[in-house]
Amino acid sequence: MACRSRILPTLKRTRLPSRYAVSAQQLKAPLQCRWQSNAASPEAKAQEGTKIIKFTTDSYPEIKRDSRFAEITPEHVEYFKGILGKESALIDGVTKDATDDMEPFNADWMRKYRGHTKLVLKPGSTEEVSKILKYCNDNMLAVVPQGGNTGLVGGSVPVFDEIVIQMGRMNAIRSFDEVSGTLVADAGCILETTDRYLADRGHIFPLDLGAKGSCHIGGNLATNAGGLRLLRYGSLHGTVLGVEAVLPDGTIVDELSKLRKNNTGYDLKQLFIGAEGTIGIITGIAIQCPQRSKAVNVAFFGLESFEKVQKAFIEAKGQLGEILSAFELMDRNSQRMVKEYTNNKSPLEDEHPFYCLIETSGSNAEHDTEKLEKFLEDVMEKEIVLDGVVAQDDTQIKALWSWREGVPEAIGGFGGAYKFDVSIPLAEMYTLVEDTRVRMEEAGLIGVSDSHPVKDVVGYGHMGDSNLHLNVSVRRYDKAVEKALEPWVYEWIEKRSGSISAEHGLGLAKKKYIGYSRSETMIGLMKQVKNLYDPNGIMNPYKYI
Amino acid sequence: MACRSRILPTLKRTRLPSRYAVSAQQLKAPLQCRWQSNAASPEAKAQEGTKIIKFTTDSYPEIKRDSRFAEITPEHVEYFKGILGKESALIDGVTKDATDDMEPFNADWMRKYRGHTKLVLKPGSTEEVSKILKYCNDNMLAVVPQGGNTGLVGGSVPVFDEIVIQMGRMNAIRSFDEVSGTLVADAGCILETTDRYLADRGHIFPLDLGAKGSCHIGGNLATNAGGLRLLRYGSLHGTVLGVEAVLPDGTIVDELSKLRKNNTGYDLKQLFIGAEGTIGIITGIAIQCPQRSKAVNVAFFGLESFEKVQKAFIEAKGQLGEILSAFELMDRNSQRMVKEYTNNKSPLEDEHPFYCLIETSGSNAEHDTEKLEKFLEDVMEKEIVLDGVVAQDDTQIKALWSWREGVPEAIGGFGGAYKFDVSIPLAEMYTLVEDTRVRMEEAGLIGVSDSHPVKDVVGYGHMGDSNLHLNVSVRRYDKAVEKALEPWVYEWIEKRSGSISAEHGLGLAKKKYIGYSRSETMIGLMKQVKNLYDPNGIMNPYKYI
Repeated sequence: MACRSRILPTLKRTRLPSRYAVSAQQLKAPLQCRWQSNAASPEAKAQEGTKIIKFTTDSYPEIKRDSRFAEITPEHVEYFKGILGKESALIDGVTKDATDDMEPFNADWMRKYRGHTKLVLKPGSTEEVSKILKYCNDNMLAVVPQGGNTGLVGGSVPVFDEIVIQMGRMNAIRSFDEVSGTLVADAGCILETTDRYLADRGHIFPLDLGAKGSCHIGGNLATNAGGLRLLRYGSLHGTVLGVEAVLPDGTIVDELSKLRKNNTGYDLKQLFIGAEGTIGIITGIAIQCPQRSKAVNVAFFGLESFEKVQKAFIEAKGQLGEILSAFELMDRNSQRMVKEYTNNKSPLEDEHPFYCLIETSGSNAEHDTEKLEKFLEDVMEKEIVLDGVVAQDDTQIKALWSWREGVPEAIGGFGGAYKFDVSIPLAEMYTLVEDTRVRMEEAGLIGVSDSHPVKDVVGYGHMGDSNLHLNVSVRRYDKAVEKALEPWVYEWIEKRSGSISAEHGLGLAKKKYIGYSRSETMIGLMKQVKNLYDPNGIMNPYKYI
Repeated sequence: MACRSRILPTLKRTRLPSRYAVSAQQLKAPLQCRWQSNAASPEAKAQEGTKIIKFTTDSYPEIKRDSRFAEITPEHVEYFKGILGKESALIDGVTKDATDDMEPFNADWMRKYRGHTKLVLKPGSTEEVSKILKYCNDNMLAVVPQGGNTGLVGGSVPVFDEIVIQMGRMNAIRSFDEVSGTLVADAGCILETTDRYLADRGHIFPLDLGAKGSCHIGGNLATNAGGLRLLRYGSLHGTVLGVEAVLPDGTIVDELSKLRKNNTGYDLKQLFIGAEGTIGIITGIAIQCPQRSKAVNVAFFGLESFEKVQKAFIEAKGQLGEILSAFELMDRNSQRMVKEYTNNKSPLEDEHPFYCLIETSGSNAEHDTEKLEKFLEDVMEKEIVLDGVVAQDDTQIKALWSWREGVPEAIGGFGGAYKFDVSIPLAEMYTLVEDTRVRMEEAGLIGVSDSHPVKDVVGYGHMGDSNLHLNVSVRRYDKAVEKALEPWVYEWIEKRSGSISAEHGLGLAKKKYIGYSRSETMIGLMKQVKNLYDPNGIMNPYKYI
């Protein structure tokens, strides 16, 4: 294939914060299919009517209710009413029928998990969380902390009758220092709202992900969310300065430091980042927010092999250096599905085996454009890239991103998908997709006709973080497919010292597979920590480790 | 004062890695005064002869040897010889006199702390560390892990007869991936050597500090070192991907993940970062190393007030954005001392109340220079900056940095110094220096004549991290000065929710002051963690929390 040179003539500078505002809107749509949304799309509503979500207890009959936990009584409810003070801070399905009101808190938005809770508590302060947990701990009442309930592994909904502690009422920005960029906020703040607040003050939340319109920043910490710009801003373990959390016994962990440097003892706040609500509830966070970049550029290009994708990544790191803010990978099948699902015109004329989306964010539009232009010239000349386009304005930036961000929705639109969110050393990252396809073929499970359960095997993800989303798109869920995939995929990953859950966490879905990414010793040490903080095991039971 | 315009005519592009090579050389000098150096300067050797380091047990008579610990016997020594296999991996002061050989491991390089150890073990592998610790734990033998022994708080030397476990033999680079930038290395690798290895491969260790010529990367993790470029590359909690460590009972914590994203359970490796060797010994690290910047620029300027310094910082963050790699502060007194000590000519003609050093690191020299030029033009025009120079070549970059990096040595050169390494919210950062001076004046302790113990009160530090180094330079150590300073300084910091130890850690020096930066609750939770991992308390006793 000959290299094309149509990138450069169309090159033009673009400015922020277009991309941010847009992606949120685009992404709201699928999220509004969630039970708890009052504005569900007609399709979603229709689906709600036709498809009942299976109870987790039916999908996982091997999980038994822990008999140490007490059943909730009207007396318990009375006590919580006393703590919370007002009727609206509590949904009581114990003393009356509140099944419908309860449903959004019982079911996850993927419609895969559904619990049996009869009580939802919505505390308005850290002190209330403390009183609730202490009481639950004293009375052996199991709880599930819940943020925006946008998780993908069933971690934020109950399995049995665990009490849901929903953090949405704690949604205040506590302080922001424009000189240092330090934000202190309640855990229940919505990510997008928080980022908008920061945008007005020239800063950016150092995390961005698809569910930003609904997810809580407390939930982001609890699940150690990674997202689209980890490449640039690093992990929450580095950007979070302080955490306020409540332990099961009601102890308030007051680690809400605003300092970038504070070497006075063990950094215990780190334990709460990624603990998925199993040792306490995060109620507040302090985080270092970078300056918002004045200029954003997005390029989208096609490549002939994964080897070339790797070369392009090395060149991008070297040439774009400090302004590179995203390097995303999409394979041909993922783009075909987006095209089929959206009926949109592809950004590139011809089809290519691989596509990459590069974003730069910097303080000087002219410099950034020049760097990107030079980089593109270079990778075209070296025949690393076959074809490409650069967004000329905000609309085009949105459009290009939609070919990456629209992948999960498109895949979900054709029935269902077995989803794997994995980390693999870069060189072998795409091999998993190829091997999975071969495995599906050998098992006779994949094909164009409806008789085959598998429609396609698709790979995309955060190339910059070695984070692949492997999706096996299916016409219908089928035990044969599941059996062919699990634990085979996990064994494949284990052999390469990868991670079976890069950013989605363990929850209920991955609990039993942790051994593929962690040694017996490490799991033992983790259980020690769990027992230390939650000896009664009331925090988010049946999940995690 | 009128603004000068001599910055721009002298502006010229400079290129890396000049600065890095240089600072290391410059900084080696004071570090070579350490006992363990074979190449100590004549001055240091003279000093060694004239000044005997006081035993810590004499300076802190209130600390009593924990009677639970066993005394080392010849049988213990035999056992360790069996583990380590060769004579040179052990210094035995138990069965023979080895006082001189032992001294470099007993005394810290600040010459403030000195222990009574009679045994130094130098393990060559993680397995050897495991066997040593298990034996020590089983036999109640206390140990002190020791890296480069460049700490400033007495954390890396014994107090009584704790066995020193010196990590210098574990100094291999295990692997480096040029695509992902992931380095895996033994804990005993010297920071500078590691950084040179990375420089040859186009990358940089995401940490740089004065002691780089001697300190170990394992020690850097154990003390959560901050250093000069935290502003740019973030904290080790974010950049470290994996840790291999040995617990007191010999358990090998195998968390040496090379993955940027791995959400499979509690992130226990974080506990070892900043634990100062109190719960285990770090034996290996995996860390994310950024691309090395092709271009480095350094500017040095004078300002009339701390208010203007803050304004300059805000402008630098905004205008230099992603290329800003250091923003350092030095007050007039610190620069006077460097001038007096080195006899060098100041970079600026006139004296100013404050000086800042700005460094940019980026991928494009031309762009960076243009940004810096524009920034300087802007801050001159707004009269934020009074005067300034920009380095024209590598020699000038070195020279400018020496006015910042030479401060500690200069201060130490006039007798001694009471040193405080603190974090304070930016707006009040310099007020501590002013208030301390007033306090010294009111107590009649400061003056030009030799009858006054205090020569000067000096402030400098990492402005970008709100990290101030407050130094009270003294002609001689004096209990009256100490009494006037402590706990007054700590109370001052507590009132502003600052940290009494920003980056130096607790060690022995700050152990008793932790309560000024941490609540009772937090200290209690920390003790829980200590007891969980080190129930016998053999790891680095008498220190930390």
